[in-house]
Amino acid sequence: MKLIYQGKTKDIYALEDGNYLLRFKDDVTGENGVFDPGANTVGLTIEGAGKAGLRLTKFFFEILKEKGIPTHYVDANVEEATMTVKTATVFGKGMEVICRYRAVGSFLRRYGMYVEEGQSLDRFVEVTLKDDERQDPPITEDGLDMLGILSKEEYKTLKALTQRIGDIVKEELAKKSIELYDIKFEFGRLKENNEIVLIDEISGGNMRAYKDGQYIEPLKLEKLVMEGE
Amino acid sequence: MKLIYQGKTKDIYALEDGNYLLRFKDDVTGENGVFDPGANTVGLTIEGAGKAGLRLTKFFFEILKEKGIPTHYVDANVEEATMTVKTATVFGKGMEVICRYRAVGSFLRRYGMYVEEGQSLDRFVEVTLKDDERQDPPITEDGLDMLGILSKEEYKTLKALTQRIGDIVKEELAKKSIELYDIKFEFGRLKENNEIVLIDEISGGNMRAYKDGQYIEPLKLEKLVMEGE
Repeated sequence: MKLIYQGKTKDIYALEDGNYLLRFKDDVTGENGVFDPGANTVGLTIEGAGKAGLRLTKFFFEILKEKGIPTHYVDANVEEATMTVKTATVFGKGMEVICRYRAVGSFLRRYGMYVEEGQSLDRFVEVTLKDDERQDPPITEDGLDMLGILSKEEYKTLKALTQRIGDIVKEELAKKSIELYDIKFEFGRLKENNEIVLIDEISGGNMRAYKDGQYIEPLKLEKLVMEGE
Repeated sequence: MKLIYQGKTKDIYALEDGNYLLRFKDDVTGENGVFDPGANTVGLTIEGAGKAGLRLTKFFFEILKEKGIPTHYVDANVEEATMTVKTATVFGKGMEVICRYRAVGSFLRRYGMYVEEGQSLDRFVEVTLKDDERQDPPITEDGLDMLGILSKEEYKTLKALTQRIGDIVKEELAKKSIELYDIKFEFGRLKENNEIVLIDEISGGNMRAYKDGQYIEPLKLEKLVMEGE
């Protein structure tokens, strides 16, 4: 088992069978000691954050598997905070895909001239490039195509997958009276067949969720969703 | 003649026949006393800047008219720094459409991880919303549609017009050995029939042009293009 990448919140190891092993760390992103899933810097360490994130990720990835949605997921060991995944390559140098159900966060900061805070958005999909130095710039379908990151055809697949997965997560949360406002995903191409699949994780740190109009912190969200599962 | 809007670089008057009169001012946008067409604040006043901008605008709008490209242009009086135009409404609260031939400016600042400075771009079109407070945020085709600013069908028209007009300006500049790197346009819907037309101006302040690898200041560009016309 060989360490091939040390990320902000996970380390990635290459396994001998060709798969990857992700180890979820207790480091969370944030600024000034406050947990902020949208931040680009590791802000603090919360004991148990890695396992909690993995528990939720396992929960959602297994639902997606049942529904036949392509992901990189193979299996997970929550006690060891590890997840085995198929090898995939990211688009360009990494890209995030956001699905929005209500106007908050960077969407509201950009388009506040046209929308009210919390206004309903119809599964709005947008893409940002992972680039800490340039504050993860948003990019259009045409831009992705021109820069050789994603073809127009692939964009269609990606957008449809994003909305389908977003809707599944939204439904699961709704069962616990939690409302999903937005969620971000990462996708990649499977090494074995180039298929576009969901990669990385689906945890509290990837979404904004509200209960009775109140924002739920990632770790609390994980507890609420996993209660009784 | 009634003043209906005072802009950063022009004033707009309503004429009795239903058209508008634009008066080009000598105020130019910039920061700290330096002329910067991309800036959102009026930085300084340059005597003759209004007329120079109008002269170039008249030149290009008349070429577009000959080629049958829809614009709001009726006629212009350079001595009085005025242009008569058909009444049009802007999209949303104002929107800019950029056509890029080489990677410079905000494109390079956003996508510098993927492109070299000055790299060729194939008539890349992008849209930003006019919103000084939010630094003119970029927006996607889906975003424009969702916010009710522009339908998908209208976006297609807008993109095609942008590339066609950009190419015409590029060709005209090439005749004077000047290379167009990027250009920004404004479009609107004609009040009389809702047709999508080019509005505002086409002057040095709307484009980045280079000669022998050197950036040409807006006022110098206007002189170079109008020489011998």
